[in-house]
Amino acid sequence: MGSGKKRIEKRKSEHIKIALSRDVAGREITTGLEKYRFLHQALPEINFSDISLSVSFLGKPLSAPFLISSMTGGTEEAFNINKNLALAAQERGWAMGLGSVRAAIENPATAYTFHIRTYAPDIPILANLGAVQLNYGYGADHCRRAVELTEADALVFHLNSMQEAFQPGGDTRFKGLLRRMEEICRVLEVPVGVKEVGWGIDGSLARRLFDIGVAFVDVAGAGGTSWIQVEKHRTEDSVMKAAAEAFADWGIPTSECIVEARREIPGGFLIASGGLKNGVDAAKAIALGADLAGFGRSLLPAAVSSAEEIARRLKQIELEMKIAMFGIGTVNVRELKGTDRICNIGERPF
Amino acid sequence: MGSGKKRIEKRKSEHIKIALSRDVAGREITTGLEKYRFLHQALPEINFSDISLSVSFLGKPLSAPFLISSMTGGTEEAFNINKNLALAAQERGWAMGLGSVRAAIENPATAYTFHIRTYAPDIPILANLGAVQLNYGYGADHCRRAVELTEADALVFHLNSMQEAFQPGGDTRFKGLLRRMEEICRVLEVPVGVKEVGWGIDGSLARRLFDIGVAFVDVAGAGGTSWIQVEKHRTEDSVMKAAAEAFADWGIPTSECIVEARREIPGGFLIASGGLKNGVDAAKAIALGADLAGFGRSLLPAAVSSAEEIARRLKQIELEMKIAMFGIGTVNVRELKGTDRICNIGERPF
Amino acid sequence: MGSGKKRIEKRKSEHIKIALSRDVAGREITTGLEKYRFLHQALPEINFSDISLSVSFLGKPLSAPFLISSMTGGTEEAFNINKNLALAAQERGWAMGLGSVRAAIENPATAYTFHIRTYAPDIPILANLGAVQLNYGYGADHCRRAVELTEADALVFHLNSMQEAFQPGGDTRFKGLLRRMEEICRVLEVPVGVKEVGWGIDGSLARRLFDIGVAFVDVAGAGGTSWIQVEKHRTEDSVMKAAAEAFADWGIPTSECIVEARREIPGGFLIASGGLKNGVDAAKAIALGADLAGFGRSLLPAAVSSAEEIARRLKQIELEMKIAMFGIGTVNVRELKGTDRICNIGERPF
Amino acid sequence: MGSGKKRIEKRKSEHIKIALSRDVAGREITTGLEKYRFLHQALPEINFSDISLSVSFLGKPLSAPFLISSMTGGTEEAFNINKNLALAAQERGWAMGLGSVRAAIENPATAYTFHIRTYAPDIPILANLGAVQLNYGYGADHCRRAVELTEADALVFHLNSMQEAFQPGGDTRFKGLLRRMEEICRVLEVPVGVKEVGWGIDGSLARRLFDIGVAFVDVAGAGGTSWIQVEKHRTEDSVMKAAAEAFADWGIPTSECIVEARREIPGGFLIASGGLKNGVDAAKAIALGADLAGFGRSLLPAAVSSAEEIARRLKQIELEMKIAMFGIGTVNVRELKGTDRICNIGERPF
Ligand SMILES: Cc1cc2nc3c(=O)[nH]c(=O)nc-3n(C[C@H](O)[C@H](O)[C@H](O)COP(=O)(O)O)c2cc1C
Ligand SMILES: Cc1cc2nc3c(=O)[nH]c(=O)nc-3n(C[C@H](O)[C@H](O)[C@H](O)COP(=O)(O)O)c2cc1C
Ligand SMILES: Cc1cc2nc3c(=O)[nH]c(=O)nc-3n(C[C@H](O)[C@H](O)[C@H](O)COP(=O)(O)O)c2cc1C
Ligand SMILES: Cc1cc2nc3c(=O)[nH]c(=O)nc-3n(C[C@H](O)[C@H](O)[C@H](O)COP(=O)(O)O)c2cc1C
Repeated sequence: MGSGKKRIEKRKSEHIKIALSRDVAGREITTGLEKYRFLHQALPEINFSDISLSVSFLGKPLSAPFLISSMTGGTEEAFNINKNLALAAQERGWAMGLGSVRAAIENPATAYTFHIRTYAPDIPILANLGAVQLNYGYGADHCRRAVELTEADALVFHLNSMQEAFQPGGDTRFKGLLRRMEEICRVLEVPVGVKEVGWGIDGSLARRLFDIGVAFVDVAGAGGTSWIQVEKHRTEDSVMKAAAEAFADWGIPTSECIVEARREIPGGFLIASGGLKNGVDAAKAIALGADLAGFGRSLLPAAVSSAEEIARRLKQIELEMKIAMFGIGTVNVRELKGTDRICNIGERPF
Repeated sequence: MGSGKKRIEKRKSEHIKIALSRDVAGREITTGLEKYRFLHQALPEINFSDISLSVSFLGKPLSAPFLISSMTGGTEEAFNINKNLALAAQERGWAMGLGSVRAAIENPATAYTFHIRTYAPDIPILANLGAVQLNYGYGADHCRRAVELTEADALVFHLNSMQEAFQPGGDTRFKGLLRRMEEICRVLEVPVGVKEVGWGIDGSLARRLFDIGVAFVDVAGAGGTSWIQVEKHRTEDSVMKAAAEAFADWGIPTSECIVEARREIPGGFLIASGGLKNGVDAAKAIALGADLAGFGRSLLPAAVSSAEEIARRLKQIELEMKIAMFGIGTVNVRELKGTDRICNIGERPF
Repeated sequence: MGSGKKRIEKRKSEHIKIALSRDVAGREITTGLEKYRFLHQALPEINFSDISLSVSFLGKPLSAPFLISSMTGGTEEAFNINKNLALAAQERGWAMGLGSVRAAIENPATAYTFHIRTYAPDIPILANLGAVQLNYGYGADHCRRAVELTEADALVFHLNSMQEAFQPGGDTRFKGLLRRMEEICRVLEVPVGVKEVGWGIDGSLARRLFDIGVAFVDVAGAGGTSWIQVEKHRTEDSVMKAAAEAFADWGIPTSECIVEARREIPGGFLIASGGLKNGVDAAKAIALGADLAGFGRSLLPAAVSSAEEIARRLKQIELEMKIAMFGIGTVNVRELKGTDRICNIGERPF
Repeated sequence: MGSGKKRIEKRKSEHIKIALSRDVAGREITTGLEKYRFLHQALPEINFSDISLSVSFLGKPLSAPFLISSMTGGTEEAFNINKNLALAAQERGWAMGLGSVRAAIENPATAYTFHIRTYAPDIPILANLGAVQLNYGYGADHCRRAVELTEADALVFHLNSMQEAFQPGGDTRFKGLLRRMEEICRVLEVPVGVKEVGWGIDGSLARRLFDIGVAFVDVAGAGGTSWIQVEKHRTEDSVMKAAAEAFADWGIPTSECIVEARREIPGGFLIASGGLKNGVDAAKAIALGADLAGFGRSLLPAAVSSAEEIARRLKQIELEMKIAMFGIGTVNVRELKGTDRICNIGERPF
């Protein structure tokens, strides 16, 4: 067991290192957001200073429709990152996801690395667990533990089948998970969400997830971080390295996930993430139907650096989003979501 | 106030310098004109020497359907540019726009830099003001002043929301401008036009503008000079610099603006500008529905150099336009505007 | 005759050498498989360990729906390659094709190079002859001989018109071959298949082939090895070298062959080959309608090296196929064949 | 007059030199033939040796459906080229066009450079004149003279409006030419054809030309030699050089001309030329509807070299055409013209 814990910690810190220093983007695949263009409104008829980004999530107000995607925890380094992210999220009024809390459940000594509520008393915080753990002994009690440890507002299950398939000794028993998640949704005291980790959730799965009672879905589509590439950099196994090449373009582009999911579940709470680079991408994601936009790896470098640095980064994303809204003349997130001033470039009739 | 004036002058001269020496084109965005191709007419059945480019604008005859876009004024350097442009425009029979006359209104000592009527007694001259100034204290009197100072034939309001958003301390109160411009249209003694500055006016706004009484619309679409890139080169602010990257492809391509606007306002006087490089581009713009074609930054180098140089440049554009017309067998601008010998390459059925 | 034999042997060994060391891919042509993308299923609801690749072919079970394409024989070097391939195919449970057995028929001393049944007692083995030989004196007896010599489960005729056209003194009398193959189908004791060698069999020919009684068709489409390029490297004739350039993009992409053939012959046994690089390509081919996927030149380097090396390569392809199936949640080949989780990228409506 | 003659001669020899040594291709424009692909027929059911390329043109048999495009004459160097081309055309059974005979009419001393009938007694020879000359004093007598001087089987008028527009002092009075050509068609003793010189004849003009009595049309489309680029290299005038850039993509791609013209004039004799590089291009052109395929500049290097060299080149083109026909299983040009084994790549439904 001790070595199991160590293994998780080693893996987590390798993940961070690789995500910071190596090329972990997929190839021949993009978010698809570059296929969409905002239709500039030359006469916006609004004042820039009137633009508001505020929304609410899990019953709490957010200053901006943004989420820091689940990333880390379990090591001292991870704690520093989480703390910086939490301070910045609190300052800017973003929601924040934590990395998988499994590390803390298996090794309570690391629980403090997930306990960022101290630094972020007011924002929605999301605890995180791999859904597949429900097939490896986890049940409602573990879920509850994850929420308590983190004082989270909700629990998010991540679906990471391809990551497990590429991880040596990965947990690849995915059978029956829908039923098990349904059970957790029924009994858990906080809302439950489901996310992918970079290959996307399509429309029909999104619908099935809302059918079993999840409170929100984060598509976490392709075009940004590819975990297969991350694992490629970790492994020495030449077969796995070569296989990773064959899957470099795997996944559903983020834009396709959003459009499909919104079509299938007109009223469900939808988070768009996966490869978002800036506030314009986020604005496009929301214009295409998302309620929140999530940022993962692109925040890491600043998060490693300092709370000030990451706060500046969040502010920049907000500013870009505001300018995009100004450019099309929408004054709040509700208007942005209903806008017809976004088009698929390929479908323009000239 | 004195420092406000100085600030405007400094900005103006930085603009010129950057426009001349830096890369200020957008990225991943083009005018869209390259998607159109003229259908060569192997037997034109006209004589080259019969081709006429003459049109009329604001009740005055033009030797060619061309406009020098509004660019500068307010400094000694700007005066030289304006003078050269005016001499050349007069010689070649083009219309000419002036840069924003606000500089002269706030600092009458610079008025002479806009007074080019001396050098161009016969051509249509357009005075220019930022529409947003109507929300910052400007009214009919200021507009009148702009026209008088320049002995202009018309006043053009420019819409530059994104430039203001990127300019430190920019004027970003755009609410209610349509009504205010309507008021000016009603009371001003000369015709009023509206233009963008490089992100384009779409069909529906064009229609609304004609509805409030503007005499002409200049789409000033994307694909040429991007003011966000200009401001990027001016700023030291790293947040603004990064934001500029996120907006590098902002705007509606010039060709899309023309086609849309012409569809919406079959009879309105339409100027096509934004990224036009030569007489073939101009011919395409007119074949797609524009009445005049405007050239901005691509004229600057010659304009800085001498009146002869810029006259040569204008002549070259005319020659290219004539050859294009010869190539499709149209003998005057009216025929060019009605031609069916232009096609969208992607829509050719082979 | 002796020199004729020598000529065949020399040609065969040149082919291997060129295929291993030179660029023999076509240009401006691909398999078309890159135009298809699997639609990731974030919740596969299967266990990885339950995935089975097993199918049956020619009445024998295969552990995986894979075939080693017909490649070689006739020389000592070829024997080594065949032996390595056979050992690996037996170990992994793949089917295996032999190169044209004509060499052994014309020169019985080389028969041993095709006799790999010793190393692969259980798998389906395919004897191979050029269909055009039926116009050059070959009949049912020669076909029988080819099957006996190799203890094969079936005989495959290859159609290689373009290779013959580019080969000096090639056998280019292709008239009447359909009737002659029909005759062989009727009288031969084992099933008869037909394959191309890299330019593809289209849907209508596939249908005609099943109509005359063939048991399976291997499309062997374009996008991988181009025999014209192989012959280009062999020839000194500058006319032929130049002609090879003109045909560098000849052929029907593998994906188009599969889709067309499956549409025309819903129930016929279909092998997809030509340019498959890995297990994801193979999975796509099967999802598009193929029953088996064949690998040719991409196996050669490992096959030259050792039985272990090539077995590792086969295993890698199987693993990639399994991961792809996991990624879309299909647990066996039958489900993969019927999947709707593959799409043509260009036809996605967003 | 003497200097006029000299000027023509100088121009002609500059043309040859530039065509041989400089980049004279258009830019961002192709023949469009690369958008078409032959659908390989794996079982051609013909014998290669049965393939025949023979057709007839102007009442004479051709061994292959090929024409050497009109190129030169008027200088000693041109005579050598014409002689080599004529010897090769006679040997291979191709038709041959001569460069504009105007040089010989204005300067009878150069008539011998066009008199290649001695070297090519049996093939169709085409005399050539600029159609625009009919507006500069030429009439039926000059046309007759051109035919007599060359012992030609037909006279071809070339339409070269854009070349004239770019040539200093070019002949640009193209008004009324259709009527004048009609008159020549009526009175001349030999058939009259019309060709472009590299920008293409569209379907509707092709129809009008057959309506006035021309015997054949040679589309001479874009994608190969661009005369604007040739003139660019000749001129010192910087305005003209810059204008040439603006027209670098002018013209109708050869493939579009063929498809359109064949649609408009189902029965008219149609020659495809402009940018054909090899026998596969020629086969595509014929499969798309042409009766003959013409080759211009790509023959020049061999033609300058020797009669043997150019004969080898012609033979190569024939071989490539035959292999293409073999590849799709068509045994003669009639079958090739009616084939359905060619497709527009972009229109394939997979
Ligand atoms: C270093 C790192 C660690 C991550 N750890 C988790 C995790 O523990 N749980 C989870 O649900 N997602 C995890 N993710 C996935 C992200 O939440 C996100 O879905 C994915 O990276 C795609 O978004 P991006 O392209 O913005 O990075 C991690 C991502 C990174 C880069
Ligand atoms: C140096 C410079 C100064 C400009 N100043 C003004 C201005 O004062 N008022 C205005 O309406 N447009 C101004 N413009 C915008 C131009 O009128 C034009 O709309 C824009 O540059 C796009 O056209 P282009 O791509 O041909 O340059 C300016 C452009 C440049 C390059
Ligand atoms: C070296 C070599 C030899 C081949 N010999 C034969 C042969 O004898 N008979 C045959 O039917 N195909 C032969 N082929 C063609 C292959 O079976 C296959 O159809 C073709 O190479 C395309 O598949 P690939 O792109 O996977 O290589 C040969 C291919 C190679 C590379
Ligand atoms: C050096 C040269 C001289 C030419 N001279 C003539 C000419 O006198 N008359 C004519 O009709 N076309 C002339 N052409 C045009 C060709 O006949 C042909 O239409 C054109 O070059 C396009 O074909 P290509 O791309 O195969 O060269 C000439 C072309 C070249 C390269």
